[in-house]
Amino acid sequence: MANSKYAYVRDFELPDPLLPGVFMVLRIDGHSFHRFSEKHNFAKPNDVRALQLMDHAAQDLMEEYPDIVLAFGESDEFSFLLRKSTSLYNRRQSKIVSTLTSLFTSSYVFHWSLYFPDTPLVYPPSFDGRIVLYPRTKEVKDYFAWRQADTHINNLYNTTFWALVQQGGQTTTEAHSTLRGTFAKDKHEILFSRFGINYNQLDARFRKGSVLVREDLEEEKEGEVTKEAMTDEGHDEQPNIKLLNHGVIIARSLKLDWKKENTRKGKARPPKTKVVVLHCDVIKDEFWEERNGLLVES
Amino acid sequence: MANSKYAYVRDFELPDPLLPGVFMVLRIDGHSFHRFSEKHNFAKPNDVRALQLMDHAAQDLMEEYPDIVLAFGESDEFSFLLRKSTSLYNRRQSKIVSTLTSLFTSSYVFHWSLYFPDTPLVYPPSFDGRIVLYPRTKEVKDYFAWRQADTHINNLYNTTFWALVQQGGQTTTEAHSTLRGTFAKDKHEILFSRFGINYNQLDARFRKGSVLVREDLEEEKEGEVTKEAMTDEGHDEQPNIKLLNHGVIIARSLKLDWKKENTRKGKARPPKTKVVVLHCDVIKDEFWEERNGLLVES
Amino acid sequence: MANSKYAYVRDFELPDPLLPGVFMVLRIDGHSFHRFSEKHNFAKPNDVRALQLMDHAAQDLMEEYPDIVLAFGESDEFSFLLRKSTSLYNRRQSKIVSTLTSLFTSSYVFHWSLYFPDTPLVYPPSFDGRIVLYPRTKEVKDYFAWRQADTHINNLYNTTFWALVQQGGQTTTEAHSTLRGTFAKDKHEILFSRFGINYNQLDARFRKGSVLVREDLEEEKEGEVTKEAMTDEGHDEQPNIKLLNHGVIIARSLKLDWKKENTRKGKARPPKTKVVVLHCDVIKDEFWEERNGLLVES
Amino acid sequence: MANSKYAYVRDFELPDPLLPGVFMVLRIDGHSFHRFSEKHNFAKPNDVRALQLMDHAAQDLMEEYPDIVLAFGESDEFSFLLRKSTSLYNRRQSKIVSTLTSLFTSSYVFHWSLYFPDTPLVYPPSFDGRIVLYPRTKEVKDYFAWRQADTHINNLYNTTFWALVQQGGQTTTEAHSTLRGTFAKDKHEILFSRFGINYNQLDARFRKGSVLVREDLEEEKEGEVTKEAMTDEGHDEQPNIKLLNHGVIIARSLKLDWKKENTRKGKARPPKTKVVVLHCDVIKDEFWEERNGLLVES
Repeated sequence: MANSKYAYVRDFELPDPLLPGVFMVLRIDGHSFHRFSEKHNFAKPNDVRALQLMDHAAQDLMEEYPDIVLAFGESDEFSFLLRKSTSLYNRRQSKIVSTLTSLFTSSYVFHWSLYFPDTPLVYPPSFDGRIVLYPRTKEVKDYFAWRQADTHINNLYNTTFWALVQQGGQTTTEAHSTLRGTFAKDKHEILFSRFGINYNQLDARFRKGSVLVREDLEEEKEGEVTKEAMTDEGHDEQPNIKLLNHGVIIARSLKLDWKKENTRKGKARPPKTKVVVLHCDVIKDEFWEERNGLLVES
Repeated sequence: MANSKYAYVRDFELPDPLLPGVFMVLRIDGHSFHRFSEKHNFAKPNDVRALQLMDHAAQDLMEEYPDIVLAFGESDEFSFLLRKSTSLYNRRQSKIVSTLTSLFTSSYVFHWSLYFPDTPLVYPPSFDGRIVLYPRTKEVKDYFAWRQADTHINNLYNTTFWALVQQGGQTTTEAHSTLRGTFAKDKHEILFSRFGINYNQLDARFRKGSVLVREDLEEEKEGEVTKEAMTDEGHDEQPNIKLLNHGVIIARSLKLDWKKENTRKGKARPPKTKVVVLHCDVIKDEFWEERNGLLVES
Repeated sequence: MANSKYAYVRDFELPDPLLPGVFMVLRIDGHSFHRFSEKHNFAKPNDVRALQLMDHAAQDLMEEYPDIVLAFGESDEFSFLLRKSTSLYNRRQSKIVSTLTSLFTSSYVFHWSLYFPDTPLVYPPSFDGRIVLYPRTKEVKDYFAWRQADTHINNLYNTTFWALVQQGGQTTTEAHSTLRGTFAKDKHEILFSRFGINYNQLDARFRKGSVLVREDLEEEKEGEVTKEAMTDEGHDEQPNIKLLNHGVIIARSLKLDWKKENTRKGKARPPKTKVVVLHCDVIKDEFWEERNGLLVES
Repeated sequence: MANSKYAYVRDFELPDPLLPGVFMVLRIDGHSFHRFSEKHNFAKPNDVRALQLMDHAAQDLMEEYPDIVLAFGESDEFSFLLRKSTSLYNRRQSKIVSTLTSLFTSSYVFHWSLYFPDTPLVYPPSFDGRIVLYPRTKEVKDYFAWRQADTHINNLYNTTFWALVQQGGQTTTEAHSTLRGTFAKDKHEILFSRFGINYNQLDARFRKGSVLVREDLEEEKEGEVTKEAMTDEGHDEQPNIKLLNHGVIIARSLKLDWKKENTRKGKARPPKTKVVVLHCDVIKDEFWEERNGLLVES
């Protein structure tokens, strides 16, 4: 071959397999999303469209990669848990981190107009990704607890901050100053006494972030209202963007179309599950106890 | 902080710095692009729109990351050379490979409609990325020679193959059979004698791939025809997609707009260069001799 | 400083921490010990002096590094289990693997003359080391089972082989040929019927290898015969090298002397344990059940 | 095989090849040598016997591993340069770092009594090792310059410090205090004016450390005095330990004996070189210019 004299350059490609038998968590973060959110006029303190778009990209990733068993998202970041025994891409680190971050990004841009029909994307956003290995279930639970505690802290701060600015007329400098040294209960008090906001009644999406898990398709029948869906922290019903959801459904159908081909002749049928978005607590044990298949290895 | 009891999970994040003082080559590859190209009816053996879109994404990457000094693309892959002394993201491997692959992907999806105005994107494509380190200039040159030799071999095969199929009426099985055991000169002969195709006169883009380098902005004045532009292997003039190029220019202007902000107050002005797309030979020494600043470290 | 202009070379030192929260197994192997054993006239199929010297070096390592909780040795190799949460040398891979392999080697050479008083060391032997990470207790148990099963297979083969050669008068070629395709029971039969050897009554050291664990010092009183010591697979009594053992005791006393200094003022007292050498089964669950503190993290 | 059900534990052994085409420097350091030197009554500020023993171990390493082209030692550390293209142990990091550190240690203990005939080794010393990769010759030169500048700084300090203590009657606290804030010229002045010591006339070994290179065997004929040997910084003549050197020669002969076997039938003959110990300057260019084969790759 004409290129055989150059083929030695492949010798510089070094293997990078990740340790077997441990959980992988892939965390994807928006790159320079402070600027990105300003350029695209994201609502403060939370932009539901932007969050739903993140969820959508995360769902796409979970549908494409069955070895992702759980995901958690807040703000411009998303964490994905891959099962301990996954042999995805032979556990090659660069391959996994780059391909999954790429698909997440791609899906984000691809679905942008569904969630921001009136806000054209001004420039292509990017995300970084990293994989962290966790040997034990305790550490996995604590990882997700860490992210959700972070969601809580950030959201309480941001909600109070923007209330002071948007409703209280403070400058951002004044608002930061007002909040300096305050504890959680102080912020609750500011929200309630000054602005009549009961923090605990705000959308669970903002307070809890998004939790994506797989559920059996059979369990869900049209029209049925599950226990969770009736509660504050149940299924995401996305009532404010019904039209957008319609768009999502169309997009999903298209996707299902090309997915179908994958399953023709010889390929194992994918399990009859679907990825659902919850806004529930993952810090308490209940979440894990109800889903004990999540961490026990299969 | 409420999340401090969980913060220990960060101890599992391990450092992954790449060796200093060596060149990095990031190679990005389309993930399952055989299917992707069929789904989107890419022309055979080469789809100029798809190649230009790849170039566009590569240009975006080079404009965003000044430490990329050279790129080479063919088919659904692109290689980027980062200068030896780059301290991009403190040379953290996962950060670099994920962020750059993400931006490339993002740009690809973002600009899709400019190059495929009549072909909606059916699903979000993805790419994988990997970094290979090269200590010496010889190895860097040989790396790019390896990719361009690969371009040549693949394109000659594919061009002959599809001529046999599209113009010669062979089935794909017959065409593979016809080509089995043939050498380059045999394929040239088939193309010329059966189909009147002089391979060496085909678009240099297909035969040489795309070579992206930075050029001083001052050097290029409107209306001026540079030496390379007059030759077969010169600047890419993209004559077939004038309308699209118009679109590109609009997009670029938008992007320049948000780039501008980066350079306000205190930040170093970016060098007055632009990224150009060539389809020239990188195997012979001339390419490197004319650009001896490319590899000597600065 | 005069050397500050060169200090940048330290930037090339890259971190190499091992993942926290997983067991480390360090396996040390004799380098070219086939030649070494011939040069020093090791007895075939097993040289008890050489095995005891290995045990001694392993004991030294365990006494120096309290985070080693278990060791297993056979032939010219030894495996050491470090507890999951060890922070030895901040879990830096090169530091751990080099220092521990170095001390093992050093101790081997240092104590040589105790076990080979009439065989001067002809040249300095060396060992290689590697660390393998195991996330789960099951894998740790299976690792040690793997090594002990290997001991069994090798020793049964070697014992039969050398019986055929030394007692049966076969050449080594003939002996290999005799054993080709035989199963364990065939080898037992050859040993018993031709040479009157009941394999299961051979020294447990040869059949089981050496298992080093820590035992509470209080438990062992002079003159007391523990349960294990009475059985076939109990404590190593080393009856054949009483004189050497005397030497060992002297050496140990010297060592204890310099150890003592370590524990003066401020340093935590080492636990009152000592390292004992057993030749027991580690494949069955009993071993682990009796020592359930070995793997549950502390 | 009886152990096949456990063999999966090998899947946890991960590859660790070092980047090809770059220099490796292995630096070996004494572990807790402050204590070791006190326990064995090393002379202050330098113990020539201990330094010669280090040199001896380093020589053994270079004779065993032809890919080591240069070594530099001072105090209780030694650095070894492996040629850029070495394929030793397939460039596996753990294998190289452990085996070479092991042999160095082994040789150190093995030869102890030659240099310390009246000082029994009280306990087995150990060393740690690490490998640092350097892409370019400049960095390699600067690495060795860094170590030799360090030798100079430490030795000037220690020499003055111990002169103040041993000859000047200061306590160690007073001596540290005397030296606080002094520059090199101040220390030279103290040595000369108070103790009549011309620092530059001290043994080059102490001021320059040990430089080990290979020289053609043919070049050296008995009785010949080479240029370097006549100078202050030439070959090490080791005048103070003639008896020991005799011992060394005996030991070397023994070793050559077993080395010889390696070269019988089929194996490539080792180059006719020997490793020599110099105490010359490696900071100035002359050293490298006279040995330009050292770094240009072969």
